[in-house]
Amino acid sequence: MKANERLQHAIRARNSLVCVGLDVTLDKMPKHLLKERDPVLRFNRAIIEATADLVAAYKPNLAFYEALGAEGWTLLRKTLECIPEGIIRIGDAKRGDIGSTARKYAEALFGMGFDYVTVNPYMGSDSVSPFLEDEEKGIFLLCLTSNPGSRDFQYLDTGGKPLFQRVAEKAAAWNKAGNCGLVAGATHPEELEQIRTIAPELPLLIPGIGAQGGDLEASVLQGTDRQGTLAVINSSRGIIFASQGEDFAEAARSQAELLRDDINRVRAAKIRRLGT
Amino acid sequence: MKANERLQHAIRARNSLVCVGLDVTLDKMPKHLLKERDPVLRFNRAIIEATADLVAAYKPNLAFYEALGAEGWTLLRKTLECIPEGIIRIGDAKRGDIGSTARKYAEALFGMGFDYVTVNPYMGSDSVSPFLEDEEKGIFLLCLTSNPGSRDFQYLDTGGKPLFQRVAEKAAAWNKAGNCGLVAGATHPEELEQIRTIAPELPLLIPGIGAQGGDLEASVLQGTDRQGTLAVINSSRGIIFASQGEDFAEAARSQAELLRDDINRVRAAKIRRLGT
Repeated sequence: MKANERLQHAIRARNSLVCVGLDVTLDKMPKHLLKERDPVLRFNRAIIEATADLVAAYKPNLAFYEALGAEGWTLLRKTLECIPEGIIRIGDAKRGDIGSTARKYAEALFGMGFDYVTVNPYMGSDSVSPFLEDEEKGIFLLCLTSNPGSRDFQYLDTGGKPLFQRVAEKAAAWNKAGNCGLVAGATHPEELEQIRTIAPELPLLIPGIGAQGGDLEASVLQGTDRQGTLAVINSSRGIIFASQGEDFAEAARSQAELLRDDINRVRAAKIRRLGT
Repeated sequence: MKANERLQHAIRARNSLVCVGLDVTLDKMPKHLLKERDPVLRFNRAIIEATADLVAAYKPNLAFYEALGAEGWTLLRKTLECIPEGIIRIGDAKRGDIGSTARKYAEALFGMGFDYVTVNPYMGSDSVSPFLEDEEKGIFLLCLTSNPGSRDFQYLDTGGKPLFQRVAEKAAAWNKAGNCGLVAGATHPEELEQIRTIAPELPLLIPGIGAQGGDLEASVLQGTDRQGTLAVINSSRGIIFASQGEDFAEAARSQAELLRDDINRVRAAKIRRLGT
């Protein structure tokens, strides 16, 4: 099945747009776990077991695993094995390199078990296409990111439209196999609507709620399609570090449930309004 | 010492602009090594020992090591340990992420022993600045890449100048600590001159000669400063896979020597012409 269809299935099966960012750092983890063997894997497994029925996707950011060296790489693979079938595994890698090298990255990341990876558009088509060759695997191409630095280049006027819109147009054209999506930050709700219009068939990965201050309601309204689907909304720290105590997994579950329900209220209102 | 000064020292100490790309794949390696233990590390060590007096820098591309999984990460660290003091170690990682995550990448890559890493500009200042905090460590920011896809976004007209020139301008402004450089491909010799003019004090990492068809002579003329320095020119396959026989290390040495001498003839001509 095409990657974007699989993502839609995952969203519908659990009636959830929630994506949990598994961005673990030892200094923020529950203290009692640090005394045990494999604390990061134990932590990830407990978070996944406590939240798997509430989410559409998990998204480890590779930086946090690379920071742990060779062991981090093994940890990442084992973490992916803990994620039940049917839930989407997004590798937040933001890779991008010349064609022959991009192919190596695609082999490494999809081979490890990711369903999607995030890819940087700056180097253009041949840096992206190796990630799109297998229709069952997909990408979220960085379009408009949630960070302050997104203003440096992504908004530059390129002949009447900002650069990020050019990226959205290219991604829509590159989505021939039904496996291309876009990253669009919750910190830019107006632009989310523009991106949704340029690329109506592409799923959006929306980071930036919580610590980064993104607008959840506007993101759901502008980022989803007319059925309130085709988007996942990421929360990392707000869910996984909800508690540093022994109750960390239950606390993560509560936060994931709250987020799912907050999102679903907005989705329901949108659907009612549109009559879809 | 500031990273860019260290790079200049490395160039002057060996009178060489050569950077060797350590992009190893098992299928292109000498067959006799595959029968031994740790073939990739043996290969890299032999290449380094055979070429270290001829080069300014080595540049492993991380994709080739990630493709080997957790073991690849260990291999990369051990490869860096083989590189003699005074030669620059460039991690070709093309990373870029929001500030807090970029910091993790910087810790991981500089912590492993790299002197420079390549960084993608798309996400802007807060994705770049964590890599510039330690003046002894530096970056080469992707500006104009050597691949065909560089035409998709990097040439877009942004209010009278192409996007890559905006990136060069930002990099010149971000070079406060003397540790920022730019990636500019040998496949775009005319634009190299523009980049050199916009950022006269920034070192350039120039990929794209050899298999990618870049213009060596024009790259040296346009990419170096008035003293014929402040640039390194990368060759990967053309050096490391010069022979797949038992003589692979000597063959690599011969190719590195040829490249150094070809470059130095152009440098000498440039210096004579400018009278510097």
